[in-house]
Amino acid sequence: MRKLAELGAYGVNFHDNDVFDFHASSAERDQRIAEFRQALADTGMVVTTATTNLFSHPMFKEGAFTANDREVRRFALAKVMRNLDLAAELGAAVYVCWGGREGAESGASKDVRAALSRYKEAMDVLCAYVIDHGYDIRFAIEPKPNEPRGDILLPTAGHALAFINELEQPELVGINPEVGHEEMAGLNYAHAISQALWHGKLFHIDLNGQNGPRYDQDLRFGAGNTRGAFWVVDALTAGGFDGPIHFDYKPPRTEDDDGVWASAAACMRNYLILRQKVQAFRADPEVIAALAAARADQLNVPTLADGETWRDIAGFIPDTDALGRRGMAFEHLDQLALEHLYGVR
Amino acid sequence: MRKLAELGAYGVNFHDNDVFDFHASSAERDQRIAEFRQALADTGMVVTTATTNLFSHPMFKEGAFTANDREVRRFALAKVMRNLDLAAELGAAVYVCWGGREGAESGASKDVRAALSRYKEAMDVLCAYVIDHGYDIRFAIEPKPNEPRGDILLPTAGHALAFINELEQPELVGINPEVGHEEMAGLNYAHAISQALWHGKLFHIDLNGQNGPRYDQDLRFGAGNTRGAFWVVDALTAGGFDGPIHFDYKPPRTEDDDGVWASAAACMRNYLILRQKVQAFRADPEVIAALAAARADQLNVPTLADGETWRDIAGFIPDTDALGRRGMAFEHLDQLALEHLYGVR
Amino acid sequence: MRKLAELGAYGVNFHDNDVFDFHASSAERDQRIAEFRQALADTGMVVTTATTNLFSHPMFKEGAFTANDREVRRFALAKVMRNLDLAAELGAAVYVCWGGREGAESGASKDVRAALSRYKEAMDVLCAYVIDHGYDIRFAIEPKPNEPRGDILLPTAGHALAFINELEQPELVGINPEVGHEEMAGLNYAHAISQALWHGKLFHIDLNGQNGPRYDQDLRFGAGNTRGAFWVVDALTAGGFDGPIHFDYKPPRTEDDDGVWASAAACMRNYLILRQKVQAFRADPEVIAALAAARADQLNVPTLADGETWRDIAGFIPDTDALGRRGMAFEHLDQLALEHLYGVR
Amino acid sequence: MRKLAELGAYGVNFHDNDVFDFHASSAERDQRIAEFRQALADTGMVVTTATTNLFSHPMFKEGAFTANDREVRRFALAKVMRNLDLAAELGAAVYVCWGGREGAESGASKDVRAALSRYKEAMDVLCAYVIDHGYDIRFAIEPKPNEPRGDILLPTAGHALAFINELEQPELVGINPEVGHEEMAGLNYAHAISQALWHGKLFHIDLNGQNGPRYDQDLRFGAGNTRGAFWVVDALTAGGFDGPIHFDYKPPRTEDDDGVWASAAACMRNYLILRQKVQAFRADPEVIAALAAARADQLNVPTLADGETWRDIAGFIPDTDALGRRGMAFEHLDQLALEHLYGVR
Repeated sequence: MRKLAELGAYGVNFHDNDVFDFHASSAERDQRIAEFRQALADTGMVVTTATTNLFSHPMFKEGAFTANDREVRRFALAKVMRNLDLAAELGAAVYVCWGGREGAESGASKDVRAALSRYKEAMDVLCAYVIDHGYDIRFAIEPKPNEPRGDILLPTAGHALAFINELEQPELVGINPEVGHEEMAGLNYAHAISQALWHGKLFHIDLNGQNGPRYDQDLRFGAGNTRGAFWVVDALTAGGFDGPIHFDYKPPRTEDDDGVWASAAACMRNYLILRQKVQAFRADPEVIAALAAARADQLNVPTLADGETWRDIAGFIPDTDALGRRGMAFEHLDQLALEHLYGVR
Repeated sequence: MRKLAELGAYGVNFHDNDVFDFHASSAERDQRIAEFRQALADTGMVVTTATTNLFSHPMFKEGAFTANDREVRRFALAKVMRNLDLAAELGAAVYVCWGGREGAESGASKDVRAALSRYKEAMDVLCAYVIDHGYDIRFAIEPKPNEPRGDILLPTAGHALAFINELEQPELVGINPEVGHEEMAGLNYAHAISQALWHGKLFHIDLNGQNGPRYDQDLRFGAGNTRGAFWVVDALTAGGFDGPIHFDYKPPRTEDDDGVWASAAACMRNYLILRQKVQAFRADPEVIAALAAARADQLNVPTLADGETWRDIAGFIPDTDALGRRGMAFEHLDQLALEHLYGVR
Repeated sequence: MRKLAELGAYGVNFHDNDVFDFHASSAERDQRIAEFRQALADTGMVVTTATTNLFSHPMFKEGAFTANDREVRRFALAKVMRNLDLAAELGAAVYVCWGGREGAESGASKDVRAALSRYKEAMDVLCAYVIDHGYDIRFAIEPKPNEPRGDILLPTAGHALAFINELEQPELVGINPEVGHEEMAGLNYAHAISQALWHGKLFHIDLNGQNGPRYDQDLRFGAGNTRGAFWVVDALTAGGFDGPIHFDYKPPRTEDDDGVWASAAACMRNYLILRQKVQAFRADPEVIAALAAARADQLNVPTLADGETWRDIAGFIPDTDALGRRGMAFEHLDQLALEHLYGVR
Repeated sequence: MRKLAELGAYGVNFHDNDVFDFHASSAERDQRIAEFRQALADTGMVVTTATTNLFSHPMFKEGAFTANDREVRRFALAKVMRNLDLAAELGAAVYVCWGGREGAESGASKDVRAALSRYKEAMDVLCAYVIDHGYDIRFAIEPKPNEPRGDILLPTAGHALAFINELEQPELVGINPEVGHEEMAGLNYAHAISQALWHGKLFHIDLNGQNGPRYDQDLRFGAGNTRGAFWVVDALTAGGFDGPIHFDYKPPRTEDDDGVWASAAACMRNYLILRQKVQAFRADPEVIAALAAARADQLNVPTLADGETWRDIAGFIPDTDALGRRGMAFEHLDQLALEHLYGVR
């Protein structure tokens, strides 16, 4: 944490069993938390989010909130609740729920509809807990399609957003999409966060890098899909995301300590480089002209004018062939973006 | 249609421009529809669903409901509205909306949040149209991650389910997930339909076959992910799906007419074979014992007992290591399922 | 091993550091090997293959035969050589080389052409070692596209087959393709082993299950791509593969010991079930007729007749449109195969 | 062609049925070729490569060189041979063979080993034709994993390289790998061309853009995997590739003529931008220091010193734990590359 602060980090994500062991006694736990708080005090870093490890201990081998064994589910909730008290104390505004073990490798072992009901029950209980304690905490579900389970429930940003609508307190729950997790399904992460922003549900982000459908690479932000990263920063900026810019990546095993910190610093540096590029792109008069030529701005004009209903367009027939022939000039616009990414404009 | 009826098909999906040309005159249109209706009358087949082609004509090259050009959007709505009248006349209960052109290949060309607002506007207008006409029609959005566009909006069942919640008449809109479309994103289709059923939103299905992330193969049902198909039939049966069993596949180009009909008949045949296997699997006493050993049924027991709140589980600590050691016996259960699929039990 | 023998296994693969620790003293090593040999003697099992762990110790974090650090490369060879003596003693006929750490996450860190030269050098040295010792051992390279490295060298069966041709003793080296490794690249494993057989290079096989491009699942054989497994058994049978049928899978973490053995036994059972199905398929008179209708056998007839040269076909123009219209009847044939898989014929 | 010349293109690829129709009479054919030659003369462009369309006509629906129907195979060879005369006349040095229809959607329809024998026979016949005519033409096989067929034979660069070794004239045949085709299998294209260069088999290249496993996108070069494109240019430069820089892409349907030419020009522009960046990267003193810190250059030092044999390293044991602790400093090196791509160094 001291090193992260030196590198300019604003805050950290609190993971319970990264700070104290699963089997830690209360005294050990308190001791480790005290050290953690001291480091916060010394560095001025904040705890932006907290989360509970519901995936490492073998009891969670086939789920936590959706384990077939009811005792596992009850304990999972108790573990999160205890951690919520700590999160509140540490000032975390967002509580991340990554249900990495909620899933299945085989068809009959998990009744998906029952599992979703238990998942909902868990989130409802946790929301009640937060409300009853008056905590200023919101939850962010982190979707992932697979790994470590064959198929994880709520596999994408979309599935999690849909699920949230069934909760008793949907306003308390949003999502925490991760670049690599969406890209493991071949999906466009910038689209995912734009849809989340559109729903008012982008409560937190996990930035990193990935090279398409394969194992979860957790590369540093900027590596992997470099071009996608540009649009991610653009989508966050355009969409007015005001949460912390959070990186969830793993330095490759090739690195010693110096290499680890070099890659951590690079995540932050790349974000700042891309932010500057995105701003320059959006301010470039040629880009503004190209956006107009692409009629990108027209999409903000409602299809029906004020006061119009379906009656006003029934039977509407424009010159369809002329519309078919009209070019969109998207390639020119996209090339301008690429040249901003290259830094040659 | 006559041939499909001979093969035992119950109904057909009505695609406007498969019956009459985009540029058909009213007379031509009426003539083709009359022929279509005659075939319905002669065969006793029903029209289960209807849909509008908003993807072939070049005017839709970059969207219909979410085209940057407002005239395209207005015409797209008018085209659907005209077709809704026909769908009502033909008795279609479900109207499928596949937004295959609603998407982008490049980042700046499409403002995703604006596009979702226009998409919502379109669905709201169409719902109003249906309500104002008193039609007994519900809409089913068909998600797809890509192809023909680089990234399609509402790429998976989850994204579509989330979107529906923002509509003015969410009860009128559900989804029509397709096996291959979910599997192109590496997702589990049986999980997708189970989640859709859980939300009460599985309004229609498109069954076919696919071999993972690649181009949209539209193989006959049963081909591709054969094991997945077993769980699809199981999920539909267990979830009480009562809509028509619909196949959306394309016979390979290797086939002449005989081969085309052979593959069409095989889709239906494979569904019936799998339905029988699924029923036998669920009725097999050894399976019932294996499900109990896997505690699969326990997932239907709420985590909190009747009347319990979070207070009743705060601080709950079971014998975590004993729970960790306890096997789930999922492999035995899954092998039983595989042996039912093989037909060796 | 005793349990595997009880289940009917014919042999085992010898992995050095699964039997003794990387840092084991010579005495410890000898002790563990003696126990291993005793188990062989007691059970009658044979050692079909041996291999060296060149991936777990952190010194191999960025390669073994292709590590940038020359000392790592020299030690890797020494470790394999020591193990080759043991393999010879244990009677292993095939030595598997899985170069899981030979690869890169980033572009400049690994000079791919230099790495291939070092890879070739390593294989040439090991072949010389085997020849000089008169060992009756052949090598089998096991390809994999990624995981644990971002991109692994020799990522598919094809790349490994191409590489072997550059070796000094290509006849001593073949491949050991794994179902899941090829399917992680979306490739058809039955095609891979057919091509390997065509080259005379299928020295060993690793059977398991996978669900397309994602992390390496190592499911039991039969699970995952069930339909693909049928064609795998067919390709092995038709191609006259006479090596041991080897399973390289991992029981899911959901299982206790009973579940582990249940899944191990199921791998063998599924192979036998599929072998029977494949034999029945090939013997079915309707299948034989369908193969003839598909002209599948004609492909064994050379394009040029005996004694013909290009001169005999220059300017040849058949009735191209008639050939275009002629159906291949592949769907009927494939449906027969599926029905054999289903066990309904 | 005139427009391409204006944009600065050096040459074109000659596709027979893009210039004249499949059913063209000899007179029509001659007329169209004369126009094509006139355009060459007027513009000074050269024909770098030629190829034959063996995929559009329905007679090729299930293969050309490997069709089950022998007449199709004989005609396919005749069609290529006729075109080889033209290629020689036009001065094409490379003849591209994309076997897009050589493959299968189902298991029994295609005997893969027989198909590879027919594929070999076809290449052998064509090599004999070229030799007998004294043409200065070499062949380049273009691999692709799937689309339009479910699984295409010779699916990757590796499979094609392996296949070539079985030919009678392997020196006449190399490969023409395409960015998107390798990336559709999740493979690293820079690695593919490096391996091809290592084998001396990179006879031609097809540059374009793709976003991982999905349909064949054929985006302009630079779009898609932007970071991968940097390493592609680096691999070509470092490997001494001296063939033409060829782009095989398709402008998106969103474009009118102006947009089409804008994207064509951008392909060339992006290559030049990246070439400059790659040169600057390799010349940057900090990069040179970082490469040394990563010991990337050590990989060119043989593992065995001159005159050493396996005897000199048998029993070699370095300080393995010290080697394990030693960092590779790859992240710093990779970040320098990224900053060159960004244009911020």
